[in-house]
Amino acid sequence: MIRVGIVGASGYTGGDLLRFLLDHPGVEIAAITSESFAGKFAYQVHPHLRGRTTLKFIGQAALEPVDVLFLALPHGEAQKQIARYAGLAERIIDLSADFRLRDPAVYQQTYGEPHAAPDWLERFVYGLPELNRDALRGAQYASGVGCNATAVTLALYAAHRAQLIPASAPLVADVKVGSSEAGRSPSDSSHHPARAGVVRPFAMTGHRHEAEVRQSLGGVNIRMAVTSVELVRGAAAAVYVDLPGVAEKDLWAAYRSAWGADQPFVRVVHDKTGFHRHPEPRLLAGTNYADVGWELDPENGRAALLCAIDNLGKGAAGSAVQCMNLMCGFDETTALGFGGVYP
Amino acid sequence: MIRVGIVGASGYTGGDLLRFLLDHPGVEIAAITSESFAGKFAYQVHPHLRGRTTLKFIGQAALEPVDVLFLALPHGEAQKQIARYAGLAERIIDLSADFRLRDPAVYQQTYGEPHAAPDWLERFVYGLPELNRDALRGAQYASGVGCNATAVTLALYAAHRAQLIPASAPLVADVKVGSSEAGRSPSDSSHHPARAGVVRPFAMTGHRHEAEVRQSLGGVNIRMAVTSVELVRGAAAAVYVDLPGVAEKDLWAAYRSAWGADQPFVRVVHDKTGFHRHPEPRLLAGTNYADVGWELDPENGRAALLCAIDNLGKGAAGSAVQCMNLMCGFDETTALGFGGVYP
Amino acid sequence: MIRVGIVGASGYTGGDLLRFLLDHPGVEIAAITSESFAGKFAYQVHPHLRGRTTLKFIGQAALEPVDVLFLALPHGEAQKQIARYAGLAERIIDLSADFRLRDPAVYQQTYGEPHAAPDWLERFVYGLPELNRDALRGAQYASGVGCNATAVTLALYAAHRAQLIPASAPLVADVKVGSSEAGRSPSDSSHHPARAGVVRPFAMTGHRHEAEVRQSLGGVNIRMAVTSVELVRGAAAAVYVDLPGVAEKDLWAAYRSAWGADQPFVRVVHDKTGFHRHPEPRLLAGTNYADVGWELDPENGRAALLCAIDNLGKGAAGSAVQCMNLMCGFDETTALGFGGVYP
Amino acid sequence: MIRVGIVGASGYTGGDLLRFLLDHPGVEIAAITSESFAGKFAYQVHPHLRGRTTLKFIGQAALEPVDVLFLALPHGEAQKQIARYAGLAERIIDLSADFRLRDPAVYQQTYGEPHAAPDWLERFVYGLPELNRDALRGAQYASGVGCNATAVTLALYAAHRAQLIPASAPLVADVKVGSSEAGRSPSDSSHHPARAGVVRPFAMTGHRHEAEVRQSLGGVNIRMAVTSVELVRGAAAAVYVDLPGVAEKDLWAAYRSAWGADQPFVRVVHDKTGFHRHPEPRLLAGTNYADVGWELDPENGRAALLCAIDNLGKGAAGSAVQCMNLMCGFDETTALGFGGVYP
Repeated sequence: MIRVGIVGASGYTGGDLLRFLLDHPGVEIAAITSESFAGKFAYQVHPHLRGRTTLKFIGQAALEPVDVLFLALPHGEAQKQIARYAGLAERIIDLSADFRLRDPAVYQQTYGEPHAAPDWLERFVYGLPELNRDALRGAQYASGVGCNATAVTLALYAAHRAQLIPASAPLVADVKVGSSEAGRSPSDSSHHPARAGVVRPFAMTGHRHEAEVRQSLGGVNIRMAVTSVELVRGAAAAVYVDLPGVAEKDLWAAYRSAWGADQPFVRVVHDKTGFHRHPEPRLLAGTNYADVGWELDPENGRAALLCAIDNLGKGAAGSAVQCMNLMCGFDETTALGFGGVYP
Repeated sequence: MIRVGIVGASGYTGGDLLRFLLDHPGVEIAAITSESFAGKFAYQVHPHLRGRTTLKFIGQAALEPVDVLFLALPHGEAQKQIARYAGLAERIIDLSADFRLRDPAVYQQTYGEPHAAPDWLERFVYGLPELNRDALRGAQYASGVGCNATAVTLALYAAHRAQLIPASAPLVADVKVGSSEAGRSPSDSSHHPARAGVVRPFAMTGHRHEAEVRQSLGGVNIRMAVTSVELVRGAAAAVYVDLPGVAEKDLWAAYRSAWGADQPFVRVVHDKTGFHRHPEPRLLAGTNYADVGWELDPENGRAALLCAIDNLGKGAAGSAVQCMNLMCGFDETTALGFGGVYP
Repeated sequence: MIRVGIVGASGYTGGDLLRFLLDHPGVEIAAITSESFAGKFAYQVHPHLRGRTTLKFIGQAALEPVDVLFLALPHGEAQKQIARYAGLAERIIDLSADFRLRDPAVYQQTYGEPHAAPDWLERFVYGLPELNRDALRGAQYASGVGCNATAVTLALYAAHRAQLIPASAPLVADVKVGSSEAGRSPSDSSHHPARAGVVRPFAMTGHRHEAEVRQSLGGVNIRMAVTSVELVRGAAAAVYVDLPGVAEKDLWAAYRSAWGADQPFVRVVHDKTGFHRHPEPRLLAGTNYADVGWELDPENGRAALLCAIDNLGKGAAGSAVQCMNLMCGFDETTALGFGGVYP
Repeated sequence: MIRVGIVGASGYTGGDLLRFLLDHPGVEIAAITSESFAGKFAYQVHPHLRGRTTLKFIGQAALEPVDVLFLALPHGEAQKQIARYAGLAERIIDLSADFRLRDPAVYQQTYGEPHAAPDWLERFVYGLPELNRDALRGAQYASGVGCNATAVTLALYAAHRAQLIPASAPLVADVKVGSSEAGRSPSDSSHHPARAGVVRPFAMTGHRHEAEVRQSLGGVNIRMAVTSVELVRGAAAAVYVDLPGVAEKDLWAAYRSAWGADQPFVRVVHDKTGFHRHPEPRLLAGTNYADVGWELDPENGRAALLCAIDNLGKGAAGSAVQCMNLMCGFDETTALGFGGVYP
């Protein structure tokens, strides 16, 4: 039984961490912190936890040592106090963007400020188990993943790994995302009358998560665009690329090779017929699964490589718990079995 | 050509007033005020007005005399300065709750505070043209209407007027409403991830608008409950009542009598078949129409009296413009012809 | 390990039965039938099961004996062949309306036709474990539950059981429901462009599920109305009733007594503050939980008794699996632990 | 006063044609045909027309000569009988895909069958007034436009016309569309429980509307992908393209030049701040407007060219009515003034 703490547990990723971890037979949740909600029950902030836990938030100052510490703070906060957190826990999983990039220069270029703890960057493993499983086993420090980066990386991974994508081919990634990506704080743009039913261009000529994709896939020529659509949970990436000379069977071989039984949370969705023949994020709400697929026109070489995830699941809390399982020696799938509902 | 001003024009009702009035051939919009947005173009706050007007918001202090002043302020504000506003315009239409109730005691009981200008209450006509058309013609002062009150009042009106409803029969009104009812300011409960897809009980054992219904319909025993559903614009009332001995033809007669050609914005929707056989608010988004209907089980006397409106249209800005038309001698339907879209 | 079969497994309730049962450690799914989809994989019809099962549909004619048979057929089918099904399995759980009512006369009055197997009616236990737990333990035959009946019955149960509701008081139940209630077959009214964003009166002066509520609660004076709203999964009941002389503490006592630790799937949601202070169906999508609560105005005695469920979970497949657990001696909560996601 | 007929008036485009034409002061609707609904009132099929017209559908066989005939038939039907229709009306506007392409070979390649009336192709003007205004003035025959083609063409038009787009640059167009694009007939994929909340890849490596874009813009290297999102009305195109050396001011100049006062239905939406700074289809529901804009990263030359429309308005019935206005000598904007609602 390991003892875990969650710092910044009142946000949506904190709520999903709690949801997964409360089902984990090897974990005791020792503490959850929130400065705003200290003293309140977790279920007062996370209504889906009503009846499932009597945990209360505490302030960070009251945090005591634990075995694993999840940091679910706003971007920029964890790096400022990473040494303190490391003093409280042998293992840390930080869900923010603070420790995702290995290169301080890339961090500065991406986030516009120098990193506050650049020496720590190389100590963190990028927390996408599908790519870094071995490095995560037994690791002390893991970063979280960017939700949009995850959708794009997993969309590309199989074809990239099989070297089906021409070097330097432009990869145009159009990502459609739900409203939970913006977090729990209300704003004018998240106000329901203003946000309902939109198709709203958000970041159309580049997104900070590109740096993660390039780091994960070795310098691919990725261009991400993000559009908000009517959805709460979900991110769906379509990466448009020319694959001249590639046939269906080549892609099947690449996907089968990349996404075998050793990748328990990735499903290849590529049917000839039916309207669910491609990945769809709605089917994945609440899960740690990623569905990947593609559409190829072999005549003209045009392809769309597809991935759908729950941005709070595989794109945040789900991957983080999966990392914890690998870091602490649990079965990788523990507490992550929920497979989604339909309709 | 009359000159109108709108005080508090940055809210949703202000936006709909502008939408209607910009189409009005007899009106010039002289000024729109907003303390927060003074200096900005109207379309920066109301994106549907882009390309339709170059009006800019001004602060209230800069307001000059006009012929008609619409007040679209938060509840409680208009009554504090009503004398000042009356000095600026011969005619005033106040869309808040401040001047809807005739009796200061009822106002105090309903809103929990004494009225700041009780002498003015009797000078205002309750601004629901379907009930008070004659009083509104040429009137100087009109109140707005409560959106939920409007839906319930119009649901009941025909049967009540025809004396089909037994005196003191309990009238259980269940009103389903969209998110725009809460106004333009973001809050935790209006945050899209929290508000999307809800069926959320809001006020289940009484709602302040009951006082309006009782005032309009002479003391009926009304009980309103309001539930938020997934919808931006719209309010739909179902009033459950026992009508022993009443037949379909009695209700048809009552509705035909109440809602004849002299009521241009009320449609009777009561078909035997089809899935649009009852009123539905979605069909009315953006309009000044109210659809009314009913379902009756003549065997056991149970009835549901129905009304659907757009809470910002017939439930606010639409009725207000209709009042202006009556007060100023325009054709009642001017600028209010939009009939909605489908699907 | 018991072997179960599902007849009519291609519908939405069939899909949810499969979802729950695939997680059940004591169950082997021996066969699933569908005449239309015989030969196809379950996941081709139920996309959320992709990667979770390689089961294929078979035709009913190929069905072999099992320990427990779930019947998820259209209403009216099971009663025609109940003897044949009983020959195939010692235990039967029928999710249709065929065996919910004990009295053949009430059945005929409710469904407009004489029952085809009236002798069987008394052999079935009404399958709502919250009311009939003891009778279900070890039982051979259980009916399913009506989704709307379940929401209304559970809304009323605590106050009714504590005798807080005056005899013969009219109980006006307004039920808001999602689109999955109409099943998997497309129709004009379920076509997305026509169904999206509606508040659509469906059955406003009575609903067939009233008979179930009366049977469960001993002849209460229930009047149900059902309105379709924008939602896929979910049913939310508000029952309006006068409770003169009843205080908050009386309701708290009634609810605590009715919904104690021995009722693992009912949560009392009744907070003083917060916007999730009442039951909401969205929180329950995919779960077997029912959230119950109330709003009371002690000054005038008006109350709204509330319940939210997932119509396919607690309102159909979830309760059916819970019945199976009781009938077969499993822990009642097995395979039903999913608690929902938020946001 | 001209007399118009609509053949195939029961579909969604037929409903929108009626909505616009009923407001047209120079038009009398002489006949509307529907084989399935002959004898029924228009409002029984188009509920938004209730109270606005007492027109009834007739069968095509009963159609008599009119001045203008709108054909709103399924693709492939109009070409079979075009001579007959031409005998009934001097002017024809066909909203299907039958007469959009000038080259019979391109038609055959695009739609997989030889054209049934190839000689007629050159007699039709492609009915997008923003491109073909002069040719449409006084024309006898106009085609409709493809909704997705319209969004993509208008997204590209200004930059293409100003020769800012390098020849043969790949133009990756990602189009997000609402459910009304699939028409009024229910299907498994349009069933609300299956369609709600989706992000569903539909045609990811090419779409038949590409041929229209190439024809309109002179052989650009366009690649269209279409994804269904949660929306009833609307199509939003983002075209990703590299524009090396192009500056903001170049695009401003191109857009101002293309979309001046002589283009009454195109608005340039390109603000520096605010969350409505880019085109959004929700704002355009029910209108004939197209909003265009762009995002440019001048440092790396990446651009997204944007357009949002209502697929049934500017993408179908709105443009058709605008064509009629030009063909018949009306003011181009007659009956098309509706500007949309917000929120």
